[in-house]
Amino acid sequence: MSKWVAERTKLFDSSGIRKVFDLGAKLKDPINLSIGQPDFDVPPEVRKAAIEAIESGKNGYSLTQGMPVLREKLQKQVDEDYGHDDRQLFVTSGTSGGLLLAMMALVNPGEEVIVFDPFFVMYNALAAVVGGKVVTIDTYPDFRIDLDRVAEAITPKTKMILFNSPANPTGAVASEEEIRGLAELAAERGVVLLSDEIYRAFCYDGEFISPARFNPETLVIDGFSKSHGMPGWRLGFAHGPGEIIQQMIKLQQYSFVCAPHPMQWAGAVAMDTDVTAQIDAYRRKRDMLVDGLSDLYEIVRPGGSFYIFPKAPWGTGEEFVHRAIEKYQLLIIPGNIFSHKNTHFRISYAASDETIRRGIEALRQLAKEGA
Amino acid sequence: MSKWVAERTKLFDSSGIRKVFDLGAKLKDPINLSIGQPDFDVPPEVRKAAIEAIESGKNGYSLTQGMPVLREKLQKQVDEDYGHDDRQLFVTSGTSGGLLLAMMALVNPGEEVIVFDPFFVMYNALAAVVGGKVVTIDTYPDFRIDLDRVAEAITPKTKMILFNSPANPTGAVASEEEIRGLAELAAERGVVLLSDEIYRAFCYDGEFISPARFNPETLVIDGFSKSHGMPGWRLGFAHGPGEIIQQMIKLQQYSFVCAPHPMQWAGAVAMDTDVTAQIDAYRRKRDMLVDGLSDLYEIVRPGGSFYIFPKAPWGTGEEFVHRAIEKYQLLIIPGNIFSHKNTHFRISYAASDETIRRGIEALRQLAKEGA
Repeated sequence: MSKWVAERTKLFDSSGIRKVFDLGAKLKDPINLSIGQPDFDVPPEVRKAAIEAIESGKNGYSLTQGMPVLREKLQKQVDEDYGHDDRQLFVTSGTSGGLLLAMMALVNPGEEVIVFDPFFVMYNALAAVVGGKVVTIDTYPDFRIDLDRVAEAITPKTKMILFNSPANPTGAVASEEEIRGLAELAAERGVVLLSDEIYRAFCYDGEFISPARFNPETLVIDGFSKSHGMPGWRLGFAHGPGEIIQQMIKLQQYSFVCAPHPMQWAGAVAMDTDVTAQIDAYRRKRDMLVDGLSDLYEIVRPGGSFYIFPKAPWGTGEEFVHRAIEKYQLLIIPGNIFSHKNTHFRISYAASDETIRRGIEALRQLAKEGA
Repeated sequence: MSKWVAERTKLFDSSGIRKVFDLGAKLKDPINLSIGQPDFDVPPEVRKAAIEAIESGKNGYSLTQGMPVLREKLQKQVDEDYGHDDRQLFVTSGTSGGLLLAMMALVNPGEEVIVFDPFFVMYNALAAVVGGKVVTIDTYPDFRIDLDRVAEAITPKTKMILFNSPANPTGAVASEEEIRGLAELAAERGVVLLSDEIYRAFCYDGEFISPARFNPETLVIDGFSKSHGMPGWRLGFAHGPGEIIQQMIKLQQYSFVCAPHPMQWAGAVAMDTDVTAQIDAYRRKRDMLVDGLSDLYEIVRPGGSFYIFPKAPWGTGEEFVHRAIEKYQLLIIPGNIFSHKNTHFRISYAASDETIRRGIEALRQLAKEGA
């Protein structure tokens, strides 16, 4: 039997996050700070738009590139934001759908993809699945981007730099200087800059800045999953240079076919839906956690997304997390899932205030255990 | 710019079907017999289930393998149907999602995938995108499977036989003898038999037979898109040997993530929804077309799906179709989209009776043109 399975399946193991979830599923009343999706639901008017689309028969295939109701509205927004001559856009099946199509459209076997460590767990897997070679740049301890190190890492085989700000798992928001520098470096060296902007709405201390501002050939992957509480609707979009977008659309025909059709009508409404209250709540949750833990933990104060990535105060990241789960039913994710280092852990504050309060209490106890 | 695009994108052109659609989009009042999706909508109780799922907050990520409400119900059905010891199941983002994951999980670069010609256009593209080599077996003029030719086509490099009955584009339903023979041959020679059963509900002259009945290691790809009028909902499933299914689930984590969540709840209701009336209507539509054209066209009477694949009475398939579009605004698909031959064309009868009547009239005129 195992003779049947392709070699590429050995490139990555079952997601470590899933292992934590399996462990957590056995717990009776866990303190769950492991979740990678918002704890708020889809806004009512957006749900209503999806329901109306279903009721009015928007249930067949959509156009490959997405329905005009959403695609043209997004394109208009992007044109206003960037004013690029050749920035095209299409609708994807979530951000991960856009990422997979980008890898398929761009990365030849043996070509290098630069990823910053810590990284979102999917990046390495997706680069590997198309035969790419992942080159990681360590950003510990402050999770800032050192442009000299990026410049050094670029070789004739480099096809892409994968950038994510606000970031999962660190919550780091790159500065305008870092973003501009990275954008200009990619342009100078003729490397594709892929910007994963799924946490764009979750910027707490300033406006969101895309590298597309400084490099018109930036390929952007974005979506509604996090900002509008709809990760299960699989609705995202990608925009970038026309030639790349056209190739991605072509590949979409033979893989995803189209993003879920009724949800596209809802996406158009989501664009006009104010989520400020949700973002404000998350800013407060971030502050709760950072304020509640900073005296006992080494924490880089995060400016966005909904994660904190502290250093384990004792043991490896894995040892610390196992203890947290066993003794306190506290579900957090060991840092080595997102990194070549096994020193940190990820806390998600996409949770109720009460859960966060219980989490802070458990983490304070845990820190003292090792002392 | 074009230095950025990966080599694999050159393996296939933009779908020819799409070109016909683009051509058709310019027509005012086309007779559209080109559509690959049912002309009936999602049954009301299934729409209702999707709406209730959205209203009750089933909008976050689902489990990678699908929600128990649907997955366990499908698994139970499959266990009852086949009684195999090791047949596992998971929920996919449509049938095409299942096909892509199967290719990724199974086919190494350079391995051969056997496909019957005429073939569904996606098969060759998907095999190519993972580096597989497509080997086609010609089934003209009767679209039957010649087991001797299959046996000859199997080499040490053969990884998979891709089988589709009822078939797109021919409408052919393989006989029990053909299916049993193919299933046993695949088992004997240690080759994966992938059975695309998306048109399973559309069998007009007898019960549906899966090769999984005769070969417990058959990998089955199935879905709700065609049977329940929901291609835009992207809901399918795959079942087969545990090891293959587990690899496909692992790959799903890094690509599709999950099938659209609220639609999974609706899928569970769809399983109990009777679509006999819809199927009966399509049987009648098939008869209308076959009866209306058989005196002027060479037609293999199709037993299923919703396509007929006649031979062009003059010219190549492409020449014939261009004339049909230009002179009669009749949208049909040239056979060379689905085949190495350019001799036939595809008619879809997923259309109103009135459209079919107009189509028959136009096709009768067209046949006489060449006489």
